[in-house]
Amino acid sequence: MDLLTNTLKRIAPIDHEWIAQAEARQLQLTKPPGSLGRLEEIACRLCAIQQTLQLRAARRRIVVFAADHGVAAEGVSAYPQEVTAQMVANFCAGGAAINALARVAGAELLVIDIGVRGDIQGEIVEAGEGSVNFRSQRVRPGTRNIAREAALTETEMQAALRVGIDLASEAARAGVTLIGLGDMGIGNTTAASAITAALTGMLPAQVTGRGTGADDATFARKIKMVEQALALNQPQADDALDVLRKVGGLEIAGLCGLCLGAAAARIAIITDGFIATSGAALAVRLCPPVSDYIFAAHLSPEPGHRALLDLIGKRPILDLNMRLGEGTGAALAMSIIGAAVAAFTEMATFDSAGVSDKSKTQNIARASATESS
Amino acid sequence: MDLLTNTLKRIAPIDHEWIAQAEARQLQLTKPPGSLGRLEEIACRLCAIQQTLQLRAARRRIVVFAADHGVAAEGVSAYPQEVTAQMVANFCAGGAAINALARVAGAELLVIDIGVRGDIQGEIVEAGEGSVNFRSQRVRPGTRNIAREAALTETEMQAALRVGIDLASEAARAGVTLIGLGDMGIGNTTAASAITAALTGMLPAQVTGRGTGADDATFARKIKMVEQALALNQPQADDALDVLRKVGGLEIAGLCGLCLGAAAARIAIITDGFIATSGAALAVRLCPPVSDYIFAAHLSPEPGHRALLDLIGKRPILDLNMRLGEGTGAALAMSIIGAAVAAFTEMATFDSAGVSDKSKTQNIARASATESS
Repeated sequence: MDLLTNTLKRIAPIDHEWIAQAEARQLQLTKPPGSLGRLEEIACRLCAIQQTLQLRAARRRIVVFAADHGVAAEGVSAYPQEVTAQMVANFCAGGAAINALARVAGAELLVIDIGVRGDIQGEIVEAGEGSVNFRSQRVRPGTRNIAREAALTETEMQAALRVGIDLASEAARAGVTLIGLGDMGIGNTTAASAITAALTGMLPAQVTGRGTGADDATFARKIKMVEQALALNQPQADDALDVLRKVGGLEIAGLCGLCLGAAAARIAIITDGFIATSGAALAVRLCPPVSDYIFAAHLSPEPGHRALLDLIGKRPILDLNMRLGEGTGAALAMSIIGAAVAAFTEMATFDSAGVSDKSKTQNIARASATESS
Repeated sequence: MDLLTNTLKRIAPIDHEWIAQAEARQLQLTKPPGSLGRLEEIACRLCAIQQTLQLRAARRRIVVFAADHGVAAEGVSAYPQEVTAQMVANFCAGGAAINALARVAGAELLVIDIGVRGDIQGEIVEAGEGSVNFRSQRVRPGTRNIAREAALTETEMQAALRVGIDLASEAARAGVTLIGLGDMGIGNTTAASAITAALTGMLPAQVTGRGTGADDATFARKIKMVEQALALNQPQADDALDVLRKVGGLEIAGLCGLCLGAAAARIAIITDGFIATSGAALAVRLCPPVSDYIFAAHLSPEPGHRALLDLIGKRPILDLNMRLGEGTGAALAMSIIGAAVAAFTEMATFDSAGVSDKSKTQNIARASATESS
C-alpha cells in the first residue's frame, strides 16, 4: 500500500467523549463556567486530538514550504520571482518576520525548499543553526505555469505530498504536538485563488485578491490568469488531488501532505493564511475528518481566505489584517493555543483552592459552558 | 500640588512624527508593505509612546486590583462575596487563570488588595514568591453599596487613585514597558455597568450583562440596581471623578489611577475586559490624551464592554468570547504586542538581507501600509 493511501487509512475523527470529559474538567477549574471562551473550546478539542486530559504543547514546530510558480511569468505579483529564493535565504539567516514570531511562540522553524526555482544564496546550514532548520527537498525547480498547463505531473504531486507526510511522521517521533503551516512562493496566491474557485465554485473575481500588494493592472492580469487556469485545466471540485495537480503548487502539495500526516499522527494543525489554508482545505476535501485536527489561526484580508475557512467550517482565532504568509499567523495563534493549554493544565480546582463554587451556593443546575454569548 | 493634579499635567499626547518614522522603518523590513496588519500599527504606536524606534517590551507587568462591592448584598452576582478574598488567595497560590496566562505572556503578576472585605486566607507572601507579588493596600474593606449611597468618599477615592498612580511610577522605575490591567471583585460588573451608563448615556439595560453567569432573576435585579444607583447618585457624565466616586469602586479607582500614572510615565497600557476598561475609560474622560497609551486587549461578551471601547475609540486586538477578568485578556494581548515588537526590532531590511524590494522593480510609488484591505 502506498504512503498516501496508508496515511488516509490512519486518519480517524476525534471522539467527542474526550471533549465531554474535558468540558467536565473545565467546570472544576477556578473560573466561572465558560468564562475563558474560545480558550476552553481549544483546550477541549486538543484533549480529543491528543486523547488525554494531560495536554502537551511544549514542543511546537512551524514548517514553511517554499516553491516557485511558473505563473509568475504572467506578471501576477508585485514582486519578482527571485524573491522566493531570497526570502528562503532570509529565513535561514533569521531575518524574516516568521523568525521573530516563531521565537515568540516558542516554536522550532523548519524551512523546506520543495520547489524553489533559483539558487539559494548565502549561508545555508542544513540541519539547523539556532532555531532554524533548512532542508532541500526540491521536487522540481518551480511549479509549472497553471495558465498554460497543469501545475504538476501525477508523479511530482505524489512526491510533494510524500514530503509533507514524512515531515509529519518525523514531527510525531520528535514529540511535536502543535504544527504550524507556513509558505513562501511568489505567485502562490494565484494558485490558491484557482484552488479556492475550483473547490467552492465561486468566481475567480470573488476569490482573488491583491496578494502582496498587486497594483490595478497586475490584479486584473491575476484574475484573468486564474480564469484561464481553470478554463484550461478543468479541475474537478470533488477530486482534491485533481485540483491540486492541475492548479496547485509544490508547496501547497507539501502543506496538504503535512495536514494528512499530522491528522494521522494526532497532531494539532494550525493553519496560517490563504496559501496554507488552501493546502488544508484540499486535505479536508480528500479526507473530511482532517478538519477535526485543524485550528484556523487567523483571517487574512485576501477574499478567498474567508471562502476557504467557510468551506472547512473554521472560525479564525485571530483577525489582525495580516497577509504575509510564512506561518506568521500560525505562530501568533500558537501562543494563544499554548495559553489555552496552560490554563487547562495549570489552574487549580474549586475544591483544591477552597473557592466557593456557584453551583454549591445557588442550588441551580450547573451553568453550561455555552450559557453566555 | 497634589499627586493627581501633578500626574495629569505630565500626560502629553503622543507625537505623530514618531509614528511616521516608525512607518518608514516598517517599509524597509523584509515583508510586503502593511502585510503584518495590526502588528505594524501596534509597533508604530509603541514607538510614539516610548519615543524611540528601539522598542523595549521585555519587562511586562500585570496589576490585578481586588476589591469587594457593597452592592453584592443586593444579590447581583452568581457568586457569594467571599469569593473575592478566596480568589486573591488563589492568585497568591498560583492557581488562577491569570497565573497561567501571565506566565505564558512572560509577565510579572502583582496583586493589590485595594479593598477586599474579608480576610485573605492561606499562604500570602508579601513581596513575592515565584512570579506573583501580593500587597495589601486596602483603602477600606469593600466599596459602599452604590444602590444605597455613594460608592466612595472623596478621600477614599483619592486614596485609591493614588495607589494606582504610585504603582505606575514604581513600574516606570523598574523599567516596565507594558502594563496589563486586571481586576477581581464580586459585584464589580454592576459598578462597571453603572459607570458605562453614566459615561455613555445609554440605558442600564443596554450596558448590563450577566457577568460571571447570573441567572434570569439575578440579572433582572442587577439591572434594577444599576438603575437605582444612577437615580440615587446622579453621576455627572462630564465629570469622571464624580462618576467614579458615586458609582465606581476601589479597584476601578486603582485601575483609573494606574492608567493615569502609566500615561504620565509613557508606559503602554493594555486593558482587559469590562471592569478594566471602565477604569481606563474614566481615565480617558478625565484626560483624553491617555487614550494614546491604551491598547484594547479583547472584546468581552458583556454588552457594556463594546460601548466603552467605542467611547474611547479602541478596536480590540482579540475577540475570543472571554469574560473572566483578572487580566486574562491583557495577558493574551501582551503576547501579541510582544510579537509586534519582536517583528519590528528583529527583522532584516531589504537592503541588509539582499531581498528585492518591489519599489525598486516596479518603479511605482512605494505602496502605503494601507493599500490592501
